[in-house]
Amino acid sequence: MSRSSGFDRQITIFSPEGRLYQIEYVFKAIRNVGASTVAIRGDDCVVIAVHKKVSDKLFDPSSITCFHRISEHVALAAVGMSADSLAIAADARSESAEFMYNYGYEMPVDLVAQRMADKAATKTQQTWMRPHGCAGLFFGIDIERGPALYRTDPAGTSVGYKACALGNKETELTAFLEKSLGEDATEPADLSLNGAIKLAVAAMRDAIGNEVVVGDLEVMVVSGENAVPRMVGTEEMEGV
Amino acid sequence: MSRSSGFDRQITIFSPEGRLYQIEYVFKAIRNVGASTVAIRGDDCVVIAVHKKVSDKLFDPSSITCFHRISEHVALAAVGMSADSLAIAADARSESAEFMYNYGYEMPVDLVAQRMADKAATKTQQTWMRPHGCAGLFFGIDIERGPALYRTDPAGTSVGYKACALGNKETELTAFLEKSLGEDATEPADLSLNGAIKLAVAAMRDAIGNEVVVGDLEVMVVSGENAVPRMVGTEEMEGV
Amino acid sequence: MSRSSGFDRQITIFSPEGRLYQIEYVFKAIRNVGASTVAIRGDDCVVIAVHKKVSDKLFDPSSITCFHRISEHVALAAVGMSADSLAIAADARSESAEFMYNYGYEMPVDLVAQRMADKAATKTQQTWMRPHGCAGLFFGIDIERGPALYRTDPAGTSVGYKACALGNKETELTAFLEKSLGEDATEPADLSLNGAIKLAVAAMRDAIGNEVVVGDLEVMVVSGENAVPRMVGTEEMEGV
Amino acid sequence: MSRSSGFDRQITIFSPEGRLYQIEYVFKAIRNVGASTVAIRGDDCVVIAVHKKVSDKLFDPSSITCFHRISEHVALAAVGMSADSLAIAADARSESAEFMYNYGYEMPVDLVAQRMADKAATKTQQTWMRPHGCAGLFFGIDIERGPALYRTDPAGTSVGYKACALGNKETELTAFLEKSLGEDATEPADLSLNGAIKLAVAAMRDAIGNEVVVGDLEVMVVSGENAVPRMVGTEEMEGV
Amino acid sequence: MSRSSGFDRQITIFSPEGRLYQIEYVFKAIRNVGASTVAIRGDDCVVIAVHKKVSDKLFDPSSITCFHRISEHVALAAVGMSADSLAIAADARSESAEFMYNYGYEMPVDLVAQRMADKAATKTQQTWMRPHGCAGLFFGIDIERGPALYRTDPAGTSVGYKACALGNKETELTAFLEKSLGEDATEPADLSLNGAIKLAVAAMRDAIGNEVVVGDLEVMVVSGENAVPRMVGTEEMEGV
Amino acid sequence: MSRSSGFDRQITIFSPEGRLYQIEYVFKAIRNVGASTVAIRGDDCVVIAVHKKVSDKLFDPSSITCFHRISEHVALAAVGMSADSLAIAADARSESAEFMYNYGYEMPVDLVAQRMADKAATKTQQTWMRPHGCAGLFFGIDIERGPALYRTDPAGTSVGYKACALGNKETELTAFLEKSLGEDATEPADLSLNGAIKLAVAAMRDAIGNEVVVGDLEVMVVSGENAVPRMVGTEEMEGV
Amino acid sequence: MSRSSGFDRQITIFSPEGRLYQIEYVFKAIRNVGASTVAIRGDDCVVIAVHKKVSDKLFDPSSITCFHRISEHVALAAVGMSADSLAIAADARSESAEFMYNYGYEMPVDLVAQRMADKAATKTQQTWMRPHGCAGLFFGIDIERGPALYRTDPAGTSVGYKACALGNKETELTAFLEKSLGEDATEPADLSLNGAIKLAVAAMRDAIGNEVVVGDLEVMVVSGENAVPRMVGTEEMEGV
Repeated sequence: MSRSSGFDRQITIFSPEGRLYQIEYVFKAIRNVGASTVAIRGDDCVVIAVHKKVSDKLFDPSSITCFHRISEHVALAAVGMSADSLAIAADARSESAEFMYNYGYEMPVDLVAQRMADKAATKTQQTWMRPHGCAGLFFGIDIERGPALYRTDPAGTSVGYKACALGNKETELTAFLEKSLGEDATEPADLSLNGAIKLAVAAMRDAIGNEVVVGDLEVMVVSGENAVPRMVGTEEMEGV
Repeated sequence: MSRSSGFDRQITIFSPEGRLYQIEYVFKAIRNVGASTVAIRGDDCVVIAVHKKVSDKLFDPSSITCFHRISEHVALAAVGMSADSLAIAADARSESAEFMYNYGYEMPVDLVAQRMADKAATKTQQTWMRPHGCAGLFFGIDIERGPALYRTDPAGTSVGYKACALGNKETELTAFLEKSLGEDATEPADLSLNGAIKLAVAAMRDAIGNEVVVGDLEVMVVSGENAVPRMVGTEEMEGV
Repeated sequence: MSRSSGFDRQITIFSPEGRLYQIEYVFKAIRNVGASTVAIRGDDCVVIAVHKKVSDKLFDPSSITCFHRISEHVALAAVGMSADSLAIAADARSESAEFMYNYGYEMPVDLVAQRMADKAATKTQQTWMRPHGCAGLFFGIDIERGPALYRTDPAGTSVGYKACALGNKETELTAFLEKSLGEDATEPADLSLNGAIKLAVAAMRDAIGNEVVVGDLEVMVVSGENAVPRMVGTEEMEGV
Repeated sequence: MSRSSGFDRQITIFSPEGRLYQIEYVFKAIRNVGASTVAIRGDDCVVIAVHKKVSDKLFDPSSITCFHRISEHVALAAVGMSADSLAIAADARSESAEFMYNYGYEMPVDLVAQRMADKAATKTQQTWMRPHGCAGLFFGIDIERGPALYRTDPAGTSVGYKACALGNKETELTAFLEKSLGEDATEPADLSLNGAIKLAVAAMRDAIGNEVVVGDLEVMVVSGENAVPRMVGTEEMEGV
Repeated sequence: MSRSSGFDRQITIFSPEGRLYQIEYVFKAIRNVGASTVAIRGDDCVVIAVHKKVSDKLFDPSSITCFHRISEHVALAAVGMSADSLAIAADARSESAEFMYNYGYEMPVDLVAQRMADKAATKTQQTWMRPHGCAGLFFGIDIERGPALYRTDPAGTSVGYKACALGNKETELTAFLEKSLGEDATEPADLSLNGAIKLAVAAMRDAIGNEVVVGDLEVMVVSGENAVPRMVGTEEMEGV
Repeated sequence: MSRSSGFDRQITIFSPEGRLYQIEYVFKAIRNVGASTVAIRGDDCVVIAVHKKVSDKLFDPSSITCFHRISEHVALAAVGMSADSLAIAADARSESAEFMYNYGYEMPVDLVAQRMADKAATKTQQTWMRPHGCAGLFFGIDIERGPALYRTDPAGTSVGYKACALGNKETELTAFLEKSLGEDATEPADLSLNGAIKLAVAAMRDAIGNEVVVGDLEVMVVSGENAVPRMVGTEEMEGV
Repeated sequence: MSRSSGFDRQITIFSPEGRLYQIEYVFKAIRNVGASTVAIRGDDCVVIAVHKKVSDKLFDPSSITCFHRISEHVALAAVGMSADSLAIAADARSESAEFMYNYGYEMPVDLVAQRMADKAATKTQQTWMRPHGCAGLFFGIDIERGPALYRTDPAGTSVGYKACALGNKETELTAFLEKSLGEDATEPADLSLNGAIKLAVAAMRDAIGNEVVVGDLEVMVVSGENAVPRMVGTEEMEGV
């Protein structure tokens, strides 16, 4: 840390090694949150599961979620500081509605994600602001290109993913996903809707422990049937 | 503290661990106040009780309160620095009145709380301001969803609670509430209006000491009868 | 002081203990002034007495006072840095006149005090200003609620008082007032106009010394007769 | 000085003892000037005498003075940094002319002084300015209240004086004036115009040395005869 | 590093040796990226090949590229921080479209490059911004001057190149290119389209290792045939 | 220097001794220039002579001068940093022309000087500027008051002088001038035009050395004949 | 360096010796560039020769030059940071074109140079900018005054020169030029166009080494024939 001292206090200052430390630190802010998130792009679906470390027994779980509907067919799972997540969701909704108004059709997933990433990038270029302390997973079924899963981050990057993990157990979950889905995977996983949900549950159990039950997970899916993102209840989860 | 030195001087700078220290410090400012607050969402009521450490024997207790009426059916208990509490109450009143003017019906509790949280969030993103040094408990009887209790904080979060504690004895009060109401509670408490008031008094006595008398508490309730928040006098308290 | 080092240089930065040091320091600025002030809210009157340490034998005592008329029935005793006191008095007068113009009746004491406190609060939230280095005692006879005595401070608080002390001998005067008027007082003091004046003189003699003569005090009272604040001359004081 | 280190670098920061160091330092700037000034408010006159340490033998003494006419009957003796003195004189003239235009009569001495003090006060409240490095003595014969002598300073205070001293030998001159005019003076001094001039010369000789001759002094007086401030020449001085 | 300490914290401050350290550090940010890039201006073509270190096995490679079409005949390969690259591409597109609108013909490669360099230069002159953390290679077939390859950097320089390397293996690739194409090259290389592609592959293998296969490279070319930049697929690469 | 450390970094901060160090430092900037300047106000003339240390043998001496014509009868000799001198000359010319336009007669020397000094003063009061690093000698024949010589400096002072010196040998030249012209001079010098020129040459030789020849001096004079400032050539100088 | 520490971080702060360090450092930035420049004002011509240290063998030398045409008869050789040079050239062209539009004749060399110097001066007076890291040599044949060579620098100075050197070997080249052309030169050099070119080549060989060949130099001349600046090719150079 001694080498970086002084270069990590301002978002606009490069360190002698060419690094912007504040952007690196904000990524740690995202891992600090209690929740672990897994996202899987299936054959004709996208599945996102969140496992929350519920530290506060008194709060009303229905009053807070990391899932936000952006437009009829696009949703966002935002991971990180909750106020910043809400700010991004609200802004994405506004961009999406304006797009619909201007062009007459729904803003595609990749455009929403890219637009939000572009806006995040500007927050890394001026001294008087700070980046948002959260990352976003925009997902939906693109009319032309099928299931779409894009991850945006505070550095202003928007990248498509086959599957990705975010938050508390990010490293362990990513390792499991790479083993199951990456290029080195011995056999391709079953990525039907049910298969993807099973894979997400398996990833959670692998990373957090077998004591994870489906009731601990908040799951949102979008599939090719009607392409409308919907929450999956505990009963449906057990029936998978 | 040596590790954090320098990262806690500006609200927009993340520490190497991804923390925003100024936001963490402002939460301590809320615990510094003399008052202890307990809020309980009952079956058809919300009860909020405040126990003040009266250090100044000469001031006129009727001239200061942490309860603020926001609209006809919504009230706020603000805990923290008193000037900041007033600022939030005034702003919430203004938002609520504007909502009524625009949409023709009263702004629901959760919307007021979320709106004030959104505004608080912006104060954590720019160098030249400071967050408000207070947290708020917005409460009322929602026409559609029944009793509502939302807590907003300087980080910009708004969360619904079954019950919560704020201020001086926050830790002890929360422990008592979790024991009585949380998932691990052996039997559900009586959450009628009277039951909730009794529980609040019991929590205060558990955390502060049995010498607490109902005359030491300032209590506001809202119940399903008319859904108008009202102060509960000492006599009524003793009659519970 | 080592622990606070660095956190007390800017008004918008919370210390790790959640304190805003600059606000605490400005309260010391108020105690630094030479004058000691006692304010007593009587049964149908308010009495404010100021004892000045006259260090400069050449200045013209009639040219400077801490008493300022705000409107016909409201006055202010401002204690602290004299230029800041004048600024607050001028601003209160302007607010009061505007209120009269808008609503057609005189601005009540508590509203003036609260308004000035709200304005003071904004000065604790932005980096480029400093709080005013003075506290104010707004007083008058409220038409509906009788004698009113409100204290505003640089932190943005406005609180009603039965009696209070400010300035140089604040601690000693407050102790005397609590003994005479507080909850623990053995018998209620005589709080007629004459009784309140006598009590103020007694408080001064207790805190400063028996050598205090009424000629050393500047006294302003407002009583129910006509509710117009007026200075009490030395002769009248001796006749009490 | 170690205790103050850091708190004296910005005009808006209070030290832990509640002091604003920059305001204290600017008062020293006023004592640093070479000139010593004595002002005496007589029975029907005001006399101001300035003794300059003439360090520069080549400059043209008629081109620089600390006396400035503000309006027909009001003058200013400004002591301190010369550019700041000119700025204050010009501003006072402008305020005075505007007052005359608005209200149809000359702006009284105390109002000019108070107005300039109010303006000075604002310069102690914002980070990006500095206070003016000079104090002012506004004087004249007030139509209603007779001879008037007001001192304004960079802290924003305006106070009336019977007599006062400013600048280089301020302490010695003040001691002499208090002995001659203060409450402890054995017999009241002769404060006719001639008496006041004599007293001013005596003060200068007492503080600086008997080698002071009237030709070393620049003297301006205003007396009840016509109430127009005028310079007193060396001959007239010798004839006193 | 001790000598530079303090001079490298602000973009507008020259060090005692006349260096602007922040500009030097941002060049390191460009080398930090995982990708290695080689650009070769052939006889009637420009070839740009990128070798990515694919660290993340789960992301969708089609969703991210360093190639950006600017206008019909001009493309950009941007190397560095991805959000900054997108910002430059979007800005270049906008400049190019506006040029076309104003002048009726396509903006030539050198003008686009110079314009973007001019804009980058302004970011080195003001304290509140940071330079973009990426360099750009603008290329195309200029109607009058044939194949054009311009490199712009965060210092605001735009220079034409016969060939150049950027990013991770910049030093090794440049050495290879100088040996093959520079003034000291023993025999001129074959710079037909196929020859240039072969040279690019050879450079990559020399710098990174013989295990590089054409499938690891992303290649864009523009040649005199139709002068429209196009991606070269793996099959076509193997057929060269 | 240790005592001043920290107080000399900002133009608006007073040191504990009441000094503004930045203003003191800028005066040193004026002495740093190579040129020595002598100005003498004669009986019916003003003579200004400049002796330049010519360090650079290649530059074209006719392209740079410290003399600037401000209006038909007023000129300026500016000593210090050359870019700042030009800025002041241009501003004075503009003020002078505007005065002529508004009032119909030429702006007198003392008014030009005072106006420029007032403008200089504002540069000592705000954090984001720096004072001009030069002093000015404004001179001419005033229609009413005869020869006029005013010196303005970066502190905002404008003072009339009988004679003065500026720049490199300021101390030595001032000593010579005081001996010849000051109050202690044994006999008054001959201050006809020729006498003043001779005195200026004598001062230069006394301060710099007898090797000074008239060809080394740049001399501008204004005399009562036509009151138009004019350069004095070497031949005329030798003929004096 | 210890003595200057702290005073060289901001362009607007004078050091205790009256120096502006940032301006001194920017001059070093100009010497840091690889190129050495010699400029000679001949009898009826101006010759400017640049010798570049070509460090990068791959770039296209035709794409970068330090020569910029400003108007038909005026050119600029800018030495220093290349982006800053371009900014100055563009600005000079714009000023020159506007002058032509306003006054109907070409802006003379000395006016262009002075105007650019004035603009440079403003960049030394405000905290939030930095000076341009380059110096300029404006040259041409003035219709009235013949060959003109003006050097502008980041300090805001514009001076005419008989000859001057800039950049890498500035000290050695200046020494050679002073020996050949300065006042101490034993015999005046031949300053016809060919003579001046020869002198420039000789200066380069003296300072850099005899291995310098005319092909290493970029040379621009303007002569009285048509007064249009033109590049001199290698062949013409060899034919001199």
